[in-house]
Amino acid sequence: MELTVYLAGQIHDDWRESIKEEAKKRNLPLTFVGPMENHDRSDHIGEEILGVQPNAILKDEAASKINNLRTDVLMNKADVVIALFGEQYKQWNTAMDASRAITLGKPLLLIRPAALHHPLKELSNKAALTCETPTQALQALSYIFES
Amino acid sequence: MELTVYLAGQIHDDWRESIKEEAKKRNLPLTFVGPMENHDRSDHIGEEILGVQPNAILKDEAASKINNLRTDVLMNKADVVIALFGEQYKQWNTAMDASRAITLGKPLLLIRPAALHHPLKELSNKAALTCETPTQALQALSYIFES
Amino acid sequence: MELTVYLAGQIHDDWRESIKEEAKKRNLPLTFVGPMENHDRSDHIGEEILGVQPNAILKDEAASKINNLRTDVLMNKADVVIALFGEQYKQWNTAMDASRAITLGKPLLLIRPAALHHPLKELSNKAALTCETPTQALQALSYIFES
Amino acid sequence: MELTVYLAGQIHDDWRESIKEEAKKRNLPLTFVGPMENHDRSDHIGEEILGVQPNAILKDEAASKINNLRTDVLMNKADVVIALFGEQYKQWNTAMDASRAITLGKPLLLIRPAALHHPLKELSNKAALTCETPTQALQALSYIFES
Amino acid sequence: MELTVYLAGQIHDDWRESIKEEAKKRNLPLTFVGPMENHDRSDHIGEEILGVQPNAILKDEAASKINNLRTDVLMNKADVVIALFGEQYKQWNTAMDASRAITLGKPLLLIRPAALHHPLKELSNKAALTCETPTQALQALSYIFES
Amino acid sequence: MELTVYLAGQIHDDWRESIKEEAKKRNLPLTFVGPMENHDRSDHIGEEILGVQPNAILKDEAASKINNLRTDVLMNKADVVIALFGEQYKQWNTAMDASRAITLGKPLLLIRPAALHHPLKELSNKAALTCETPTQALQALSYIFES
Amino acid sequence: MELTVYLAGQIHDDWRESIKEEAKKRNLPLTFVGPMENHDRSDHIGEEILGVQPNAILKDEAASKINNLRTDVLMNKADVVIALFGEQYKQWNTAMDASRAITLGKPLLLIRPAALHHPLKELSNKAALTCETPTQALQALSYIFES
Amino acid sequence: MELTVYLAGQIHDDWRESIKEEAKKRNLPLTFVGPMENHDRSDHIGEEILGVQPNAILKDEAASKINNLRTDVLMNKADVVIALFGEQYKQWNTAMDASRAITLGKPLLLIRPAALHHPLKELSNKAALTCETPTQALQALSYIFES
Repeated sequence: MELTVYLAGQIHDDWRESIKEEAKKRNLPLTFVGPMENHDRSDHIGEEILGVQPNAILKDEAASKINNLRTDVLMNKADVVIALFGEQYKQWNTAMDASRAITLGKPLLLIRPAALHHPLKELSNKAALTCETPTQALQALSYIFES
Repeated sequence: MELTVYLAGQIHDDWRESIKEEAKKRNLPLTFVGPMENHDRSDHIGEEILGVQPNAILKDEAASKINNLRTDVLMNKADVVIALFGEQYKQWNTAMDASRAITLGKPLLLIRPAALHHPLKELSNKAALTCETPTQALQALSYIFES
Repeated sequence: MELTVYLAGQIHDDWRESIKEEAKKRNLPLTFVGPMENHDRSDHIGEEILGVQPNAILKDEAASKINNLRTDVLMNKADVVIALFGEQYKQWNTAMDASRAITLGKPLLLIRPAALHHPLKELSNKAALTCETPTQALQALSYIFES
Repeated sequence: MELTVYLAGQIHDDWRESIKEEAKKRNLPLTFVGPMENHDRSDHIGEEILGVQPNAILKDEAASKINNLRTDVLMNKADVVIALFGEQYKQWNTAMDASRAITLGKPLLLIRPAALHHPLKELSNKAALTCETPTQALQALSYIFES
Repeated sequence: MELTVYLAGQIHDDWRESIKEEAKKRNLPLTFVGPMENHDRSDHIGEEILGVQPNAILKDEAASKINNLRTDVLMNKADVVIALFGEQYKQWNTAMDASRAITLGKPLLLIRPAALHHPLKELSNKAALTCETPTQALQALSYIFES
Repeated sequence: MELTVYLAGQIHDDWRESIKEEAKKRNLPLTFVGPMENHDRSDHIGEEILGVQPNAILKDEAASKINNLRTDVLMNKADVVIALFGEQYKQWNTAMDASRAITLGKPLLLIRPAALHHPLKELSNKAALTCETPTQALQALSYIFES
Repeated sequence: MELTVYLAGQIHDDWRESIKEEAKKRNLPLTFVGPMENHDRSDHIGEEILGVQPNAILKDEAASKINNLRTDVLMNKADVVIALFGEQYKQWNTAMDASRAITLGKPLLLIRPAALHHPLKELSNKAALTCETPTQALQALSYIFES
Repeated sequence: MELTVYLAGQIHDDWRESIKEEAKKRNLPLTFVGPMENHDRSDHIGEEILGVQPNAILKDEAASKINNLRTDVLMNKADVVIALFGEQYKQWNTAMDASRAITLGKPLLLIRPAALHHPLKELSNKAALTCETPTQALQALSYIFES
């Protein structure tokens, strides 16, 4: 049995790598998917494909369409979703992805620093599990395969 | 034909009132529902019902359960969802509600100041309509009933 | 038992009126809903609510969002959908509405002139019934209530 | 991770080939499916299987059943749908396929010449992405696999 | 609380009347719907609405479309379905209606003479309850309202 | 806005009455439904409708069919489900009803004595709210209507 | 792309073999599943697994449970369903399987002798295709794979 | 065709082994999944991943989250669910898993000693099959693959 895991959330540090490496070390049959992690490319993909847009807002809209396309296709394939919130940024797209997963019946693992407990309490209440580090989330996935 | 509208989002100003008054003035057959707007009551409802909790985190969890219960029951009844984002606060529960509405096939009207365009671009791309004022959202609802 | 009927399709003649009048004459418990039938208003609703747009394409996009919002809200309420195709116009939005109804499990009545048989054959094959006049469609609805 | 892509739309030029070749060149794990592209065969398949029909309309109906069967089976397997509209023909079956994809939660890529912007504005508003060339649609699919 | 009950099955005797009368006597808040019970009208409805058809098979097809339309609209509204099988006739449309109800999650009450036990055993196994008389089915519905 | 509440669980004391009275006192627009509370009648309903059964097991099966019919019909109508577990009895049907509610997306309120915390921990984790008294559950429902 | 095909219907002749052989000859990537074709074994499987039952009716019920289990598991895996009706037998379980397929959105191919047109007209109207021989059904499946 | 089978129920004896061995002996293409069978590990997994919890109740809650995560992920992958009830323990989580399977349309095989007939009669009525030994359940699965 193989599982596909969508890694939602910020693309400003290498938290996804730590999860992937740990999974590899444990030899888990997991396929990881997620958003474009190259921030610049993610911001410019709209103009790259559709051509130069009239202004910054339309450039953003073009990019968000293609990023949402990627998310929708990959999340439809996912068995579990991990969403990580960091201290910075609005991260409303992460909350959107997390809520979509829950509503589709795909278990959600929420990772966030303890300091974000209060503003994330409603989402945390809906998550299958809330933890503080990527390693904890990976441990929970690993547990699924233990006999 | 009557429609039920869930008003998601911040409870720190009276934006809901402006929508309700405008609907009344136009005589629209709309029933508005939404979260508890008394912030204090919303924060204490967990302890009010379940008794004093051991610490602030557990107090928050108790409250978030009951607030999520209210949201889930009322959103299940809603035909349309309006979500308003303001300049302050994390508002991840608003993003959660908005995304839940979209995933359930309930059209979402997004209200946000132009300044929040960039961080809300993915959610905006999924919304039925994004506008800047409660009045604009109400105008769109009003249009549904015009012949 | 009351039924809600969504009347999809062209807004360039008064076919909806003939259906409504016939239903009234027969005293059928039907509520009819549908798109904005004032073509000009339908084209300008985007700018009316969101303000003047930079160009014709963005004006169209703004209008289509609000017209789709109306369609989605009302079609979610509908028990049956009637879609009329005329000789003129592309009418791809009518085909979109008709297909959406079928996919949602809402029976579709297709009205089209015999001359359009060939290009509509796939949609016709999916419809509950294909006929040539609004009166025939209304007769079929009337039959649902006969004992 | 492999994706199945349904290529809806006209069968009068070789746009599907250009997409398949580009996917091959980029080594993308995509399986392409779609309607019968041999127009004659598509029109005669009903009589080929069921025998000669009494008239042209019944011949069309027999063919449309089998073409719809093919579409339904293959679209149920698809992860993404691309729909191309050209300048000619009614293409209501393309609009039907596109709308079915959207309603089933399968992201839709819409390809159409800029000249068709106005009549396709409602469908475009529902699509994940609207572009003008098959290459652009393929670029968007390619982006899903980039890391 | 009111319930809508679809009465599927043969239209050759007055079993529906016995159920309706019993419900009336017990003052139960039930609305009964079902197929056209006038057999002749049911067979001719296709030609009545669409005009004379080229042959008996096409006359049948036209009628079955309109009868299926009626069934689909009314069964979508139903909370419970009662299906009665008699000793005569093929009654495959009754089996179709019964199976549709089960698959849609609408509880099915099956009424059949004991003699039909063997050929109906698979359907009986899926029904909420199998009984032998309309009165028994009505008693079961009545039980839902008892306190 | 009115809500329908299914009251699942033991029928050996009058906990449902305390909820109904409190709701009445608070004037809440709630309709309460639930299983047959007359234990004897619930056990004999199978034989009452279907006649004497060959043995105790078949008598039980006949009764369970009709009790499940009642539960299914009423739970389909419910907006919220309250399930109460007491200290005695196996109560697997209560767990079945509670889990069905959760899986159907209907919020579940779980009432149980603190002593049952351990064996109910998985169900509690899935419930919208777990509390210890019927009054607490009613308070949570009441909160949904407060403005 | 591989497809799984459920072959519903009578088990009294070798129509399934003719389909399987033709598929093999054409090298089609089809996996065929279906009910137990050994009639005796199908009738006795209940007692074989659960032990001797008190009477013929209970023996039938035990068998129908296990045959329905087989059907449900395999039909859930199917992409297409073929249902064959013959001149003899009640075949209500075939109608049940066919209707279940349609309601689940799995295209149905109906095979029946022309003589059964009238009693099968409602089911035929819901089928993707109705034909008279197993070979015709296989030809339609074959067409799905042609390019 | 391969099937995935979720084995719900008590983890206090080796009933799962007897099923797996029998499946191996018969060479059936079955993949078995299920809960953590090491009771101690199951009870401590919450603290192992999330760290020491303030009290026994919170320790239980942490563990139940991770055990529910495992169940949800694996049951989503399952084609069939087997649930075994023993003479001891409350086993409400087993009833929860069984009911979830039924509601999701996954056939349920119920194993229980005859002595538990009465308290399990409602669940038994919803199960595809109720039997008394793991071997019987395996025989029923085996029957699915016989030709």
